[in-house]
Amino acid sequence: MLGRCAARALGALRGLREGAPPARSPGPSRRLLSSEKVSEKDHSLPKPCWSKDMRLLFDQFMKKCEDGSWIHLPSYEDIATQRSQDFSTFIHAYFPTASEQINKEKLSQGRIFTRSFEDGLGFEYVMFYNDAEKRIVCVFQGGPHLQGMPGFFHGGAIATMIDATVGMNAIVSGGIVMTANLNINFKRPIPLCSIVLINSQLDKIEGRKLLVSCNVQSVDEKILYTEATSLFIKLNPEKEFHIKELVLNSAPPA
Amino acid sequence: MLGRCAARALGALRGLREGAPPARSPGPSRRLLSSEKVSEKDHSLPKPCWSKDMRLLFDQFMKKCEDGSWIHLPSYEDIATQRSQDFSTFIHAYFPTASEQINKEKLSQGRIFTRSFEDGLGFEYVMFYNDAEKRIVCVFQGGPHLQGMPGFFHGGAIATMIDATVGMNAIVSGGIVMTANLNINFKRPIPLCSIVLINSQLDKIEGRKLLVSCNVQSVDEKILYTEATSLFIKLNPEKEFHIKELVLNSAPPA
Repeated sequence: MLGRCAARALGALRGLREGAPPARSPGPSRRLLSSEKVSEKDHSLPKPCWSKDMRLLFDQFMKKCEDGSWIHLPSYEDIATQRSQDFSTFIHAYFPTASEQINKEKLSQGRIFTRSFEDGLGFEYVMFYNDAEKRIVCVFQGGPHLQGMPGFFHGGAIATMIDATVGMNAIVSGGIVMTANLNINFKRPIPLCSIVLINSQLDKIEGRKLLVSCNVQSVDEKILYTEATSLFIKLNPEKEFHIKELVLNSAPPA
Repeated sequence: MLGRCAARALGALRGLREGAPPARSPGPSRRLLSSEKVSEKDHSLPKPCWSKDMRLLFDQFMKKCEDGSWIHLPSYEDIATQRSQDFSTFIHAYFPTASEQINKEKLSQGRIFTRSFEDGLGFEYVMFYNDAEKRIVCVFQGGPHLQGMPGFFHGGAIATMIDATVGMNAIVSGGIVMTANLNINFKRPIPLCSIVLINSQLDKIEGRKLLVSCNVQSVDEKILYTEATSLFIKLNPEKEFHIKELVLNSAPPA
């Protein structure tokens, strides 16, 4: 289940999918409605809390973006004051029963799970997309608040970054999707505060089903920590255009 | 991959496993070394951020604890200043290569992932264990910072609570374990800030393997949101006693 940041990155990719030259530098690509307030911080750009290795990997991938084969995916914070009318429409369209259960007051405090930590304490990551190969690589630096077993990441934190990465791969390949299955094999525990590479790959599209696999490796690719497969379902294609417009319109200003 | 809070709950359960009468009220059960500083807040007890429904469910389950058939599992915050020597020993015993990669400074800031949010914004939960049936029920109230798709929980947040619940079931049944596989079917999205029940069940023990399944349901049990199976591996039994002692000794004071 993916959020607005993913939808915004999809917005950034729209130029590519419509045949325009790929973006060569990170940055937002869409206009906000004048009434909206968003945080414009792009979390996928280097921050002081990024380690030297994280920064190095970022620079290496940005180099690969120069010829257009790879694309940097920006990642904005969630809109603090969410447009409840748009969300009601979105929710009602697909989940009429669920929409009755949404607590509107709480919804206004909603923040994307993977961006709800203070800098450096939780999920620090940046994703790069290769359209020809239908791959996404996520460079992930996990913070000390993601601990499970003492000294290691919590399995749920790894599952979260896997879901975010394979989900983004499914979104850029298939539009608005939902996670239907996530099957994760934890092969080795990942030391707390490590930097790892999450390599995801679109394997197959069968009608409304998208199959995406991934692995989690050490930066030097010598240690395979985790492997996963996933199944995503495209939401009803008849409704998709409308939903895409709703979500994409909330991307940050150019 | 489970943390110290789980290990502490295991400490609380030790009396039961050794034939002592089951605990009838929540509360810490072990002594700290005098040099340790911990937060003694038990997050599994009612807080102002708990909704009326969450509180009602807590009271219902506490009633069930009165005859000893169910046991309330306490959940303490992580120790802020971790005993690095103990952790080094723990880590080195099972993962000698990984132990070299642990950043000791970062480790001292380690916090259990599911308890690293401010009250009410992230994971609010309480678990109850039925020893005869080898079941755990987790009452979970997710906060607004766990958002994925607008208005719904992030799949990673659901995966995290599933891992925590099935993992606790594996720990109380098998001692110190690690998640080897987690296979999750997301059937319906869960509205943000919902309260749900996570019902887990130990299905089988085969040597060092423990199979645990679970589902996530609405409080009235009318909506099945998610189903999952999991596989846990007991860590080397020869080393287990030593590790148990190390971890259990850090439980909070009586």
